[in-house]
Amino acid sequence: MSGSIYGNIFKITTWGESHGSAIGVVVDGCPAGLSLCEEDIQKFLDRRKPGSSQFTTQRKESDSVEILSGIFEGKTTGTPISLLVRNTSQRSSDYSDIASYYRPGHADYTFDMKYGFRDYRGGGRSSGRETIGRVAAGAIASKLLEELGITVTAYTEAIGPVSINPEHINIEEARSNQTGMPDAEASSKAEAYLKECMENLDSAGGIVSCIVKNLPAGIGEPVFDKLDANLGKAIMSIGAVKAFEVGDGIKVASANGSTNNDSFYMKDGEISKKTNHAGGILGGISDGSDVIIKAYFKPTPSIFQEQETVNRTGEDIKINIKGRHDPIVVTRAVVVVEAMTAITILDSLLQNMTSRLDDIKNFYRP
Amino acid sequence: MSGSIYGNIFKITTWGESHGSAIGVVVDGCPAGLSLCEEDIQKFLDRRKPGSSQFTTQRKESDSVEILSGIFEGKTTGTPISLLVRNTSQRSSDYSDIASYYRPGHADYTFDMKYGFRDYRGGGRSSGRETIGRVAAGAIASKLLEELGITVTAYTEAIGPVSINPEHINIEEARSNQTGMPDAEASSKAEAYLKECMENLDSAGGIVSCIVKNLPAGIGEPVFDKLDANLGKAIMSIGAVKAFEVGDGIKVASANGSTNNDSFYMKDGEISKKTNHAGGILGGISDGSDVIIKAYFKPTPSIFQEQETVNRTGEDIKINIKGRHDPIVVTRAVVVVEAMTAITILDSLLQNMTSRLDDIKNFYRP
Amino acid sequence: MSGSIYGNIFKITTWGESHGSAIGVVVDGCPAGLSLCEEDIQKFLDRRKPGSSQFTTQRKESDSVEILSGIFEGKTTGTPISLLVRNTSQRSSDYSDIASYYRPGHADYTFDMKYGFRDYRGGGRSSGRETIGRVAAGAIASKLLEELGITVTAYTEAIGPVSINPEHINIEEARSNQTGMPDAEASSKAEAYLKECMENLDSAGGIVSCIVKNLPAGIGEPVFDKLDANLGKAIMSIGAVKAFEVGDGIKVASANGSTNNDSFYMKDGEISKKTNHAGGILGGISDGSDVIIKAYFKPTPSIFQEQETVNRTGEDIKINIKGRHDPIVVTRAVVVVEAMTAITILDSLLQNMTSRLDDIKNFYRP
Amino acid sequence: MSGSIYGNIFKITTWGESHGSAIGVVVDGCPAGLSLCEEDIQKFLDRRKPGSSQFTTQRKESDSVEILSGIFEGKTTGTPISLLVRNTSQRSSDYSDIASYYRPGHADYTFDMKYGFRDYRGGGRSSGRETIGRVAAGAIASKLLEELGITVTAYTEAIGPVSINPEHINIEEARSNQTGMPDAEASSKAEAYLKECMENLDSAGGIVSCIVKNLPAGIGEPVFDKLDANLGKAIMSIGAVKAFEVGDGIKVASANGSTNNDSFYMKDGEISKKTNHAGGILGGISDGSDVIIKAYFKPTPSIFQEQETVNRTGEDIKINIKGRHDPIVVTRAVVVVEAMTAITILDSLLQNMTSRLDDIKNFYRP
Repeated sequence: MSGSIYGNIFKITTWGESHGSAIGVVVDGCPAGLSLCEEDIQKFLDRRKPGSSQFTTQRKESDSVEILSGIFEGKTTGTPISLLVRNTSQRSSDYSDIASYYRPGHADYTFDMKYGFRDYRGGGRSSGRETIGRVAAGAIASKLLEELGITVTAYTEAIGPVSINPEHINIEEARSNQTGMPDAEASSKAEAYLKECMENLDSAGGIVSCIVKNLPAGIGEPVFDKLDANLGKAIMSIGAVKAFEVGDGIKVASANGSTNNDSFYMKDGEISKKTNHAGGILGGISDGSDVIIKAYFKPTPSIFQEQETVNRTGEDIKINIKGRHDPIVVTRAVVVVEAMTAITILDSLLQNMTSRLDDIKNFYRP
Repeated sequence: MSGSIYGNIFKITTWGESHGSAIGVVVDGCPAGLSLCEEDIQKFLDRRKPGSSQFTTQRKESDSVEILSGIFEGKTTGTPISLLVRNTSQRSSDYSDIASYYRPGHADYTFDMKYGFRDYRGGGRSSGRETIGRVAAGAIASKLLEELGITVTAYTEAIGPVSINPEHINIEEARSNQTGMPDAEASSKAEAYLKECMENLDSAGGIVSCIVKNLPAGIGEPVFDKLDANLGKAIMSIGAVKAFEVGDGIKVASANGSTNNDSFYMKDGEISKKTNHAGGILGGISDGSDVIIKAYFKPTPSIFQEQETVNRTGEDIKINIKGRHDPIVVTRAVVVVEAMTAITILDSLLQNMTSRLDDIKNFYRP
Repeated sequence: MSGSIYGNIFKITTWGESHGSAIGVVVDGCPAGLSLCEEDIQKFLDRRKPGSSQFTTQRKESDSVEILSGIFEGKTTGTPISLLVRNTSQRSSDYSDIASYYRPGHADYTFDMKYGFRDYRGGGRSSGRETIGRVAAGAIASKLLEELGITVTAYTEAIGPVSINPEHINIEEARSNQTGMPDAEASSKAEAYLKECMENLDSAGGIVSCIVKNLPAGIGEPVFDKLDANLGKAIMSIGAVKAFEVGDGIKVASANGSTNNDSFYMKDGEISKKTNHAGGILGGISDGSDVIIKAYFKPTPSIFQEQETVNRTGEDIKINIKGRHDPIVVTRAVVVVEAMTAITILDSLLQNMTSRLDDIKNFYRP
Repeated sequence: MSGSIYGNIFKITTWGESHGSAIGVVVDGCPAGLSLCEEDIQKFLDRRKPGSSQFTTQRKESDSVEILSGIFEGKTTGTPISLLVRNTSQRSSDYSDIASYYRPGHADYTFDMKYGFRDYRGGGRSSGRETIGRVAAGAIASKLLEELGITVTAYTEAIGPVSINPEHINIEEARSNQTGMPDAEASSKAEAYLKECMENLDSAGGIVSCIVKNLPAGIGEPVFDKLDANLGKAIMSIGAVKAFEVGDGIKVASANGSTNNDSFYMKDGEISKKTNHAGGILGGISDGSDVIIKAYFKPTPSIFQEQETVNRTGEDIKINIKGRHDPIVVTRAVVVVEAMTAITILDSLLQNMTSRLDDIKNFYRP
């Protein structure tokens, strides 16, 4: 069944394998009238590009995007926007081994169980390159959100045992260093930790945080399409994510109501909250505070130590994975988290427009 | 926009407010031929019924289910199954106060922001009674999964600071005590903790674990409809859940690849894994191991201490919530987690049936 | 798979069999703030009620609707509206015969092929009573459309060989006579024709027309969700409909461009069309003219003549259908066509609200 | 809102404008294991290619398809198949005039009303070139249906006043002549008629018939997703279609039950029908007979006669359309009807696989 389509109104369809001829996305349901050019999308793609630091694979992927449809005279027309990125750095020969066995922590085995065979080159559809389509679509969603004054910002919260100091957050720092951490001191420590991992032929996990600012109250639908439920799906659908939190997240389980409840109060004539344990969402609907979520990523499963596994003919074997692999997923995943969040927030904003009869009357009979 | 419909093939539509005349669910897409009677559903509903312990509200809700359609001669017909539960214990007068203000930690404010007004009686649509529809539908999904040899089992993992000992798990214990914990010793400690919370006019959070056994490998769709993404949405859509984990969950962020990867090996002629850090899902697709997830619930927001908030006219006020409220959500939520998991797993199994051309040929041209 | 859910934003889920305990619908996605009471819905249901004329079955079905959720203080709350109609006139014994054989023109055989068995009482889910849910939901859609100044009106265009004179259309006539024809003269002729059919133990087909007035231009989505495509599905999904037309319909196949094109011209400062061969839809999007569609219904398949068929054990047999059956579907189907049209038009209006960035900015940042 | 995605399990997303850089489709949900190469798709595209007869535009569009993803070692992998066709014959200068006015019978006005502006070059998204994506996806669906022994065949039934003789049907004739008619005699007459139309600077409408053979009984879902309802939407979504019929279509309205009912009888030990007025569908579900549908196309709206219309500034004007336009839509639309039918039939077959518990048990626990 179809698994590569996401969204209700702002709907994206991604496609492409790691070593196919291209990778891309079709965005259907983007409102008409948004100024959009390839540079708007390219700058997001560049943030996930490999080769930009010592902690990302040294593959040279230019990942240049081409807009094929949906734009006329510099603006979105309301019809599908098709985006294409050619795969240019395929070294399929690196992967000839893995055709015959199942790499631990990868989707090799599960794809074979599902489909009977798989495109094993570079992980095929389960490769991290699949996120190119997400990021390209997220660039469009982010640009549209900006028009509404809403910002979505993700950064690296932790790498292995190294966490940022929440009081030192500086987003410009995060955008310029090699870890994506908004805290120079933590970033240095994390770099040292990653070097150690690499020396040990090992890999590290980490945490990405994402904050949505200026989202109006009232966004999200009750029951199954709660804003946090949809964000949960969006984030958990990113490869290597094993946990998702909103607000205080797992800490709420050991909290008490008296401390976990956020008191409302009047601030400059507006209803506000004294604290934000809830992470900006109550009953699945935004409350006007910052929406704060976290994604927990597992360590890159491709490590250079010898590992035990089985092959397709059912024999226990030992393997040594070759090729070019990042020692950590997190640094390049920051922009993916940002993209999936932006798409989900935008989709929820669009869905919310039909919540009240008065608004509909005002729209059609102003 | 519609937010009360869930699922792709096995689709459920829930409806009903806490103090309306009834609450229910329509299950569309249930395969024909499943033996089903009201008792099958009632026994699930009884597990979420209030009044069954000292830690659940003393409201008397009989919550008797009536099957209105979709069954003929004791079997599902393939057409929609409509299930109805009358609300019988409405004491709306308890709620007259809350019409005018916004309870901290509740959806009062966000519903008003979204819709312009709200059915304030007992929380209306955002009440925990909304889960009756989920549990009733989950009972059907669970019964169908049993026919396939698949079991879904949830229990209380932690209440406040008290966690179970994973080596003491005994599900029968969990089904018979007042905490839902599968560990008698932890359960006693948790009872003591909850009594303390009640004496303090406070409430507690907790964790629910859920395990799916005997799920075949190959279930789940790549990219956006990953099995863990769909489970994440299913669980995060339950009121009061603030975090979701699969397998080792948040711990993976501080792990290394060498320890987090689960090695494959041959066991009795079958491909198996030596460990299950992944929680049974690789690349979004089941790997044949147990699927293990966790839901983190916040403390009940209705507490009996005085709280600060604002009213609808924008004044800072102090409130004292009355009525009957559970000091903890978790104990009654266990069956809700189980229901949402069962529905999601079943839906994924149904979706998977069209993955391979060979299976389709075998179906239509055996 | 699920087949009883319809709509994208205004989503309806119908359920119920002819001889089950009840029949109903859940409407999810209805905007908040619409005044709604049971009488609003009952008056639509009364238009499809049997027993109201000599050409409808003399079964006494009171078909009283109960609103179970989604309304508070007389207004829709934005949450699901659940509507229930109890089945009160079940004489299942009339149908004991048909358990064993396949009635020509009915869905008995196809349901058995699909599901392995069927609820044979009164046609089960394929009974005309299934339309109760559609009509109840359509009543809500119609009421909401009225708030926008849009009207949807259906009437009987033809019964067997008797057609109305388009110049004599009087909707009040259609609402008061026994044929639903808006032309008294044609109605008399049609009555005579129907009596003749009944004397011959036969049944008749007919045509229902439906006109949508005051629909703004710009409604409908390009490509697959064209307004006429969605109307086509809505109308073809009504039992017994075998053809669907928009505007000039089948006549366009023998027309020329020079006569079929509708010229635009300025009328009172507004863009208008001199003719309306297109039936108000160009490129799948409304053009501001009346939307005009037609549904062609086959004759009631239950006739009292002896018929040839086969039984479930594969023998050729002759049958005589008993029970109470309308000699024509059309007269009671008028309100069903109106309901499905209203639901589809409303859903398209809601979908259109996110077409332009300017409107979205105006909504969120006025 | 999104309008360019179609299907439930076999889901297609089309994109592209007439004069953009490319046009294409993404097919998500295609089962794994189907042999597929570009030639399989190209031969369908060639059937809709212009320039192949005197009745199609003399634009030279090579319309060569490139497969970008979803195929590995010659077989579908179960992941999205992305297909791309570069636009090579854009003469946008031909269309500079139409930027400023609204062509009668076209979507110029309605797109402007919906989106505020439009890509006017060659009709943009509302161009007939939009069907390239449909046909490419239909080629895949057709190939998969062949594996199940099911064939979908469309042909021209009528052009203006010239209809084929149903007793002379020869599909090879239809595939080789310039009208798509399976009757050489009718085809000659139709050619003469079309030449006459062209001499008159006029255009003609026509009818396309489509027959599905060997479809098993039981396909289609009750109520809203009836097989004929879904086919109705699929066909009505093709530009220029104004009516849709199944089986006897509009004729049923003037028929009687005694003649319209198809008697079942035993034929060679199988349940069969003596006639097929129903067109192979009863109660929305296939009955094992041929499924027979018809699409009625309006004449090409672009004619070379002077026409009256208005411009964007609201003035009455007279226009003379230039450029290259087919005098009839039908001949090139035959393969589009076939494609949309194949996609819908395949999707319905896939949906049906979860109808019975026994089949599901047999699948997972054989």
